[in-house]
Amino acid sequence: MQKGLLIVISGASGTGKGTICKKILADLPEVAYSVSATTRIPRPGEIDGKDYYFLSFAEFRTWILEEKFLEYAEVYGNFYGTPLNKIEERLNRGEDILLEIDVQGALNVKEKCPEGVYIFLLPPSLEELKSRIEGRGTENPESLARRLKNAVAEIKIGLNYDYVVVNDTINSAVEQIKAILTAERLKVARNAEKFDFEGGFFE
Amino acid sequence: MQKGLLIVISGASGTGKGTICKKILADLPEVAYSVSATTRIPRPGEIDGKDYYFLSFAEFRTWILEEKFLEYAEVYGNFYGTPLNKIEERLNRGEDILLEIDVQGALNVKEKCPEGVYIFLLPPSLEELKSRIEGRGTENPESLARRLKNAVAEIKIGLNYDYVVVNDTINSAVEQIKAILTAERLKVARNAEKFDFEGGFFE
Repeated sequence: MQKGLLIVISGASGTGKGTICKKILADLPEVAYSVSATTRIPRPGEIDGKDYYFLSFAEFRTWILEEKFLEYAEVYGNFYGTPLNKIEERLNRGEDILLEIDVQGALNVKEKCPEGVYIFLLPPSLEELKSRIEGRGTENPESLARRLKNAVAEIKIGLNYDYVVVNDTINSAVEQIKAILTAERLKVARNAEKFDFEGGFFE
Repeated sequence: MQKGLLIVISGASGTGKGTICKKILADLPEVAYSVSATTRIPRPGEIDGKDYYFLSFAEFRTWILEEKFLEYAEVYGNFYGTPLNKIEERLNRGEDILLEIDVQGALNVKEKCPEGVYIFLLPPSLEELKSRIEGRGTENPESLARRLKNAVAEIKIGLNYDYVVVNDTINSAVEQIKAILTAERLKVARNAEKFDFEGGFFE
């Protein structure tokens, strides 16, 4: 059996990664979401244990000490982490695991799991990115300016990913990500057993 | 403008690479075929300059001396070569170029053009491969046995390719190849210019 794909999707703030990941999960039942943990306050509608594990700083610290994270990082003064949650065993069983994490976390994961599939989402334009961040309406002016500045810095880090998808429309971005996953499953490095044609032929 | 993809498709004899390449070319107008040269006798229906450049041994030798080949190799006592045909200029203009070449030739090209996309076709089973080679009906018994033995050896070399596609049905193989091409076009290494978001933001 082929090992599952570890799929890591990141993007600058406001590139719509949440929406895209939800659609990927809805369209591809073989892909399972791995819920991240964070110390940040839930946004309206976000559910603990589904969108994130919402932890206090003290709880987050305990998880770190109990080695429950594949990686964790501080972003905008809050902590974000990827719980291990038996990721390795699940991959070995053939499950694909989707992680939606920030660039800092993704690079940490890439160091540990270089065979993962690292996809970076870009906004179609600077203007679009700005209006998406503003449109979210949960930001004060300082937080907004900080997010914009960070977005530009984060986009540069995207050069370390494997693939880049421009989120022009949700549907075309999702189709491109599906093609990436199809192609990754066809990589020779993931299919060595298919080449075992020897014996049987001249018996 | 993004540079075109150099797409190299190979497969053991009888894996149906010809049929698959024809369908790729028919479905994807952005992909252009690069005609190979050979000293072998045309099969019924094959057209000089379209399926192959059919050359005499003397002509082939002249092309070698005039450095008209990206690579060439001897297979089953005949010569096969990939004419340069301005491949580099065409790629730089954004054209995708499809090469359908044998494994020996493909590995030679891979050494020179590691950024190409190397796709190896496998038959769905040994039995299927055998019946496809036999079904062609252009082989004498010795040639058939040699082709079968060679097929097993060639399949092993496929481990050096980037992707493997099992030619179970033509349509599914073609769809998989299309996904590979879509994914390859999304590779960060081919899209560095998309990350140039700096300036313009805080002006």
